[in-house]
Amino acid sequence: MEYKDLLGGKGANLAEMMSVLQLPVPHGFTISTDACRDYMHGGWPKSLTDEIVRHVATLEKKMGRKLGDAKDPLLVSVRSGAKFSMPGMMDTVLNLGLNDKSVVALAATTNNERFAYDSYRRFIAMYGRIVLGLDGEIFEHSLDAAKQASHAVTDADIPAAALRDLCEEYKKAIAAETGKPFPQDPAKQLRGAVEAVFRSWNGPRAIAYRVREKISHELGTAVNVQAMVFGNRDDNSGTGVGFTRNAATGEEKPYGDFLVNAQGEDVVAGIRNTEDLNALKKKFPKIHEELLDIFARLERHYKDMCDTEFTIEQGKLWMLQTRVGKRTGAAALKMAVDMTSPTGVGKKSWKISKKEAIMRITADHLDQVLHPQFAKKQKGIAKGLAASPGAAVGQVFFTADDAERAVVGGTDVILVRAETSPEDVHGMMVAKGILTSRGGLVSHAAVVARGWGTPAIVGADAVKISGKSFNANGVTVNEGDWLSLDGTTGEVMLGKLELVASKPPKEFATILKWSDEVRKGKLAVRANADTSEDALKARELGAEGIGLCRTEHMFLAPDRLDVVRRMILAESDSEEQLALEELGRVQKEDFVELLKAMSGLPITVRLLDPPLHEFLPRIEELEIKKASAGLTEEENTLLRAAHEWSEVNPMLGTRGVRLGVIKPGLYAMQVRALMEAADEVSSKGFEPIVEIMIPLTVTREELALARSWVEEVLADINSRPAPKAKKGQKPVKRPKVSIGTMIETPRAALCADQLAEFADFFSFGTNDLTQMTFGFSRDDVESRMMPAYLDAGLLQRNPFESIDQDGVGQLVKMAAASGRKAKRGLKMGVCGEHGGDPESIGLFYRAGLNYVSCSPYRVPIARLSAAQAVIGGDKADTK
Amino acid sequence: MEYKDLLGGKGANLAEMMSVLQLPVPHGFTISTDACRDYMHGGWPKSLTDEIVRHVATLEKKMGRKLGDAKDPLLVSVRSGAKFSMPGMMDTVLNLGLNDKSVVALAATTNNERFAYDSYRRFIAMYGRIVLGLDGEIFEHSLDAAKQASHAVTDADIPAAALRDLCEEYKKAIAAETGKPFPQDPAKQLRGAVEAVFRSWNGPRAIAYRVREKISHELGTAVNVQAMVFGNRDDNSGTGVGFTRNAATGEEKPYGDFLVNAQGEDVVAGIRNTEDLNALKKKFPKIHEELLDIFARLERHYKDMCDTEFTIEQGKLWMLQTRVGKRTGAAALKMAVDMTSPTGVGKKSWKISKKEAIMRITADHLDQVLHPQFAKKQKGIAKGLAASPGAAVGQVFFTADDAERAVVGGTDVILVRAETSPEDVHGMMVAKGILTSRGGLVSHAAVVARGWGTPAIVGADAVKISGKSFNANGVTVNEGDWLSLDGTTGEVMLGKLELVASKPPKEFATILKWSDEVRKGKLAVRANADTSEDALKARELGAEGIGLCRTEHMFLAPDRLDVVRRMILAESDSEEQLALEELGRVQKEDFVELLKAMSGLPITVRLLDPPLHEFLPRIEELEIKKASAGLTEEENTLLRAAHEWSEVNPMLGTRGVRLGVIKPGLYAMQVRALMEAADEVSSKGFEPIVEIMIPLTVTREELALARSWVEEVLADINSRPAPKAKKGQKPVKRPKVSIGTMIETPRAALCADQLAEFADFFSFGTNDLTQMTFGFSRDDVESRMMPAYLDAGLLQRNPFESIDQDGVGQLVKMAAASGRKAKRGLKMGVCGEHGGDPESIGLFYRAGLNYVSCSPYRVPIARLSAAQAVIGGDKADTK
Repeated sequence: MEYKDLLGGKGANLAEMMSVLQLPVPHGFTISTDACRDYMHGGWPKSLTDEIVRHVATLEKKMGRKLGDAKDPLLVSVRSGAKFSMPGMMDTVLNLGLNDKSVVALAATTNNERFAYDSYRRFIAMYGRIVLGLDGEIFEHSLDAAKQASHAVTDADIPAAALRDLCEEYKKAIAAETGKPFPQDPAKQLRGAVEAVFRSWNGPRAIAYRVREKISHELGTAVNVQAMVFGNRDDNSGTGVGFTRNAATGEEKPYGDFLVNAQGEDVVAGIRNTEDLNALKKKFPKIHEELLDIFARLERHYKDMCDTEFTIEQGKLWMLQTRVGKRTGAAALKMAVDMTSPTGVGKKSWKISKKEAIMRITADHLDQVLHPQFAKKQKGIAKGLAASPGAAVGQVFFTADDAERAVVGGTDVILVRAETSPEDVHGMMVAKGILTSRGGLVSHAAVVARGWGTPAIVGADAVKISGKSFNANGVTVNEGDWLSLDGTTGEVMLGKLELVASKPPKEFATILKWSDEVRKGKLAVRANADTSEDALKARELGAEGIGLCRTEHMFLAPDRLDVVRRMILAESDSEEQLALEELGRVQKEDFVELLKAMSGLPITVRLLDPPLHEFLPRIEELEIKKASAGLTEEENTLLRAAHEWSEVNPMLGTRGVRLGVIKPGLYAMQVRALMEAADEVSSKGFEPIVEIMIPLTVTREELALARSWVEEVLADINSRPAPKAKKGQKPVKRPKVSIGTMIETPRAALCADQLAEFADFFSFGTNDLTQMTFGFSRDDVESRMMPAYLDAGLLQRNPFESIDQDGVGQLVKMAAASGRKAKRGLKMGVCGEHGGDPESIGLFYRAGLNYVSCSPYRVPIARLSAAQAVIGGDKADTK
Repeated sequence: MEYKDLLGGKGANLAEMMSVLQLPVPHGFTISTDACRDYMHGGWPKSLTDEIVRHVATLEKKMGRKLGDAKDPLLVSVRSGAKFSMPGMMDTVLNLGLNDKSVVALAATTNNERFAYDSYRRFIAMYGRIVLGLDGEIFEHSLDAAKQASHAVTDADIPAAALRDLCEEYKKAIAAETGKPFPQDPAKQLRGAVEAVFRSWNGPRAIAYRVREKISHELGTAVNVQAMVFGNRDDNSGTGVGFTRNAATGEEKPYGDFLVNAQGEDVVAGIRNTEDLNALKKKFPKIHEELLDIFARLERHYKDMCDTEFTIEQGKLWMLQTRVGKRTGAAALKMAVDMTSPTGVGKKSWKISKKEAIMRITADHLDQVLHPQFAKKQKGIAKGLAASPGAAVGQVFFTADDAERAVVGGTDVILVRAETSPEDVHGMMVAKGILTSRGGLVSHAAVVARGWGTPAIVGADAVKISGKSFNANGVTVNEGDWLSLDGTTGEVMLGKLELVASKPPKEFATILKWSDEVRKGKLAVRANADTSEDALKARELGAEGIGLCRTEHMFLAPDRLDVVRRMILAESDSEEQLALEELGRVQKEDFVELLKAMSGLPITVRLLDPPLHEFLPRIEELEIKKASAGLTEEENTLLRAAHEWSEVNPMLGTRGVRLGVIKPGLYAMQVRALMEAADEVSSKGFEPIVEIMIPLTVTREELALARSWVEEVLADINSRPAPKAKKGQKPVKRPKVSIGTMIETPRAALCADQLAEFADFFSFGTNDLTQMTFGFSRDDVESRMMPAYLDAGLLQRNPFESIDQDGVGQLVKMAAASGRKAKRGLKMGVCGEHGGDPESIGLFYRAGLNYVSCSPYRVPIARLSAAQAVIGGDKADTK
């Protein structure tokens, strides 16, 4: 187990900050994730009580103060800290150790009664809410009442006496709600808080976050207990968060939010408007200097941008937390490229390699910079902080539940909130864009939206929300109205603005160029494209060929559907032949355009795959019409055919090569159209490279038969004279056409060695392979059960998004190995949606595949991920 | 390669007959199956021409005669001979070597002009039909004309001169049809005949036969060229077939058919009525004695019953063929048991072991003796030879095509033909029973029907067929009329007689007892049964438990469907709970009966599996009614629910454990009902042994969750006091309940090690596993494409009948191995239909499974096959 596994990210960093970086960190101790796992499986571990007592004793000795002490009390914070950062997802208790006696002592030792009772009332409320599970409203109400009674504008204006009364009220409320008094014993308080942190690991919002972020539910959290330092002690105190560079743009310039006389939660929650590092420099010039020095040390140490939490207590700087910071896509690209040039001077300079730079970029980062932008800049009805870049258009909803319902109904949603909290995550997850009227760039809304690449504007204080509408500078926006957000500029615009494709930063091209250098000759990237438009887009985005051209899309065009139906309904061979010839003519035209678009690059053309009933009208509609209005002669014929071709389980039915067996002229027609198109474009100076793919084969004999159909047409075409070259160009030589098959049923994968005999290439169809391996119909199970399955942890991941490594992945690896064993140099690729998923690409590379093929817009991500897979290593022996 | 692989069964036997058994066999040579395979892949092998020349030269030298010689010509037969006997399926050419010159010489040397020209005209016609592919009708017409012209009653009455003219006519017909003269060169004739035999391997009837008999299409046939001997030379000649024991009853008494002055084809085709061995004894006493001596030698050599073809040429006996003979089920059982006692005396006595006896019985043999019989004996409208035992009831059809069509339409068919030929095989294959008016016990119809266990009556000469009706003793039977055949007595009865289960011969029990001794502790046999009736039947037939009780069958009973629907439609948890409780009460009653029936033996109860829409009305029906007559409120509700639960691919949809996840109380209800039933029967002195099975799991987490539901109920039940024992009986102790899962998706098989963690047992559901592994929906592909796929050789076998060894079988083996590796002693069985298929059972045993479970009537076959698997060996290490 790694250090980080055991202590969590925060705990490990705290240890490192103290021992390695020698930063000014408040003393404390960490309860390991082991204890949390033990707790999850068997309740509170007995040995943990003693362990905590021991740790507390040591801490008290170091600090020279005791928890709950009536003279000079020690206060501690209790924070969660999982292996992977889950900002705001789990619980924290501050000011622990205060009770009716120690609060008096605190007032005395700090000579600040107001501070002492403010800390106590915060602690009681936090404890009530988090440890005892009470509704926060109870405490909010009393606070508001106290504020009104003392005519205070902000919390900070409430006088000490009122705060002391508030503490009494809070304690009474707790006793009333729980039937037990608020615990005065600090040991009891501590145990309660640790347990609450453990419990929060399996809180619904934490689970939802882990599902979204693909973090294992088994890890558990560590708990960090640390001596409190107080940013809210006086005006010589304060608290803030700092980034060593700008996390939004990537600029090499430290950035931070800072509040005088405040605790950390005030900054993160965005309740008060923060100041920046310049303000810190003015107010605390020495501390500003110390902080910048710490930033430089951190960057040199981690060789990356870090984010930090710091507190100033009566003029002394304390670092509460540091970690490698989250960033936007544009920032990630800029930082990664920037950091390959030396930073700092002399001995202290540092840089990263190009490969490290590649490994720093995630698919989400690229997704963000590939996000659409608005076609025209426009002044909006309000402006906020540009918290997460990209343009978003949608209808306005004001609660997470409303947003979720609307999205289920097919609506694009902009979620508008005063501020967000973890309870809003389910609505934020599905929103196209997020707008808040309060909070800064490190508020909950901003951090979460940035992580997901969801465009967001925060702190737009002109936005005044009231129920299910808001007013901004005199304009009223109601629930359901259209709104457009520019997360890159912070502009909030009325109506439904036109979107255009984004223009990624220049580092985007740099990273992809480096990626291509790394993966060249090791893992190629193709695109799935059925039209010349898609093919051109794919080429532009760096695709090295088409891995899947689905010919059925050509069949479904309205002007062709009639001909397809004539083929299906044909009552004689000659009728069928006529329809096939007509189809051949239109198919040829499509192929001509496609082959031109991809001249010089390979195109894998899959012969017709879907069940024939997909080309017929729906039975139910016709039957209803029959029962009511009656059917025409033609409709009656179609109804009969629809019945004849209807299937109980079309996914496992008459499709793929089975169609070829039933309609023997079909595949020959398609191959002929394709090869005649190739001849035509050849004579115009284009260079077609054709690969013909047989879908859904399960036996060697099927593939041998289908191959014979293709070869027969090829032989016929080749017996004709080669097309004439364009004047002045070299003579046309027909290239060798390769013939391969999809591996998309478990049997094909299990018998890959047999299929390899008759295949020049394999293309793994991992969508269907996943459906059959799991027995999960995408049309049924994925939509109906997947969310429940993921929520309940019955599946770690949606296997249609990222390949199931244990089951489907195992089949891919087996098939790749046995295919290559049967035929050295067998070309292999993948053309399911997994071809654009980073983790799946890793598996495909290790399995020895030659290329991945994905949708055109995923090509850049696939290029990056392929390079990362190559750097990651472990490619199978592909001799 | 074995001797038999290379020379074919017939060739190998001929070699053995000469060299080992020293039987009087005409000289000849065999062209190996290698040559046939070469021919199939690349056309006529060049080297073969020379090889044949060399062989012919040797043969001519041995015989002192030459092919086509104008003085003393050698004639040869050219016969197919595959590794496995395919009676009548491939081609034979007799009398080869005759031409316009040698026929004159044959007439002179035999002093029998009629014989010579009869042989010549037979040869020309055979050659025209088989080698040149002409329609046999051409020759039949001329023959009929010649017969009429010469006022002949039978073929044998046609005078020599007319036969000579016939030869001329035949030759003219060939020249006219093919544009080439009939070949006079014997070398050309021989090459043509050999090629025709090769070609006949891939003739449609041979392919159909191999599919039915599960013989590989890759084997190819050998060709046997043998000097002709003539049973039709004169009245001192003859031909016959002989069995060393009675192939129908198994009696230890030689049996045979015999014709004076005839060629072998006359006997097999059943054109003339034959005489038996007693007639032979009378006419040729010395030859009869020699034949019986040969029979004894054959039996001693093969330690089995043999069938033989022999010819007497002018008083000399020639053995043309011997092989281990086909037999009825009853005969197979009797012979196998009989032969375990010594036969013969002293040195020459022989016997077989019990294990050998077990290996001699096939599933088809048992099937035959298990066939139903008629409830009452009854005199029929006609009587024929009892050619294949068992009772059959169906509607009459007169051609194979009509029969096939009727069966496709769901009709039970009795095929009535004057005689059958290989062209009728497709109709015979699907008929419930076969009736012919001509032919003997070794006629085509009889041999084929016996091989398949199809009841058949042959040679019922009272049956006069005319078009699509027949008359028998004054009764007219038209197409579509009901007819009942007793293949055991030969009685043909009008109408639809009542059938009862058959009573197998006493050897049936003996063989099964021996089988049980062999397989005891190695491979158990259970039955799939959902009702107490089925369970009792299974017990009676030797099942050692229930391997699969499908609880959905209990749900589908009409009186329960309403309750099930209430559960599905429930709008609140409490409504759902009420419906579940009601279901629990009825389920408990069913379980009580079942547990009583299987007291002391294990029952594997599978929790609810099928998609919920199966319990709802069909959408289409309701929609049609809605569009026409309108729907009631209740129907509207049902329609909404049907839409809600409808699925595109229900096979891959919301079923199995997924139902449990969606309706969390469902499985708990079933387990509670089962365990309460167990308590109830325990208190009455029965001994329930319960195994609970979770269907369709694909992930470990699913199984862990489902297991927790079951364990929760078990814990609750176990917390109650154990049921009181019946007076005087020992106190009831609740047995441990085991909890396991189906392995029926490819993923479950691939991740079996993970599932094993939470499973006490695995049960392989090979039906669904086959559907998903192949992507073959039984409802769609099996019915629509399977025949075409088998015919075209795209599949060697129907994978739903016999497990696909390469694909599905590989998954079973992988899962069994990894499951056992994860959990030593994991119990494993199979409950798909393959559990009753002999070859599949072999694979399951080798994979290390502990039991197979099949339908009750297959249990005896499974017991036998399990023993054969054990004797076959290669059990995986199951420690």
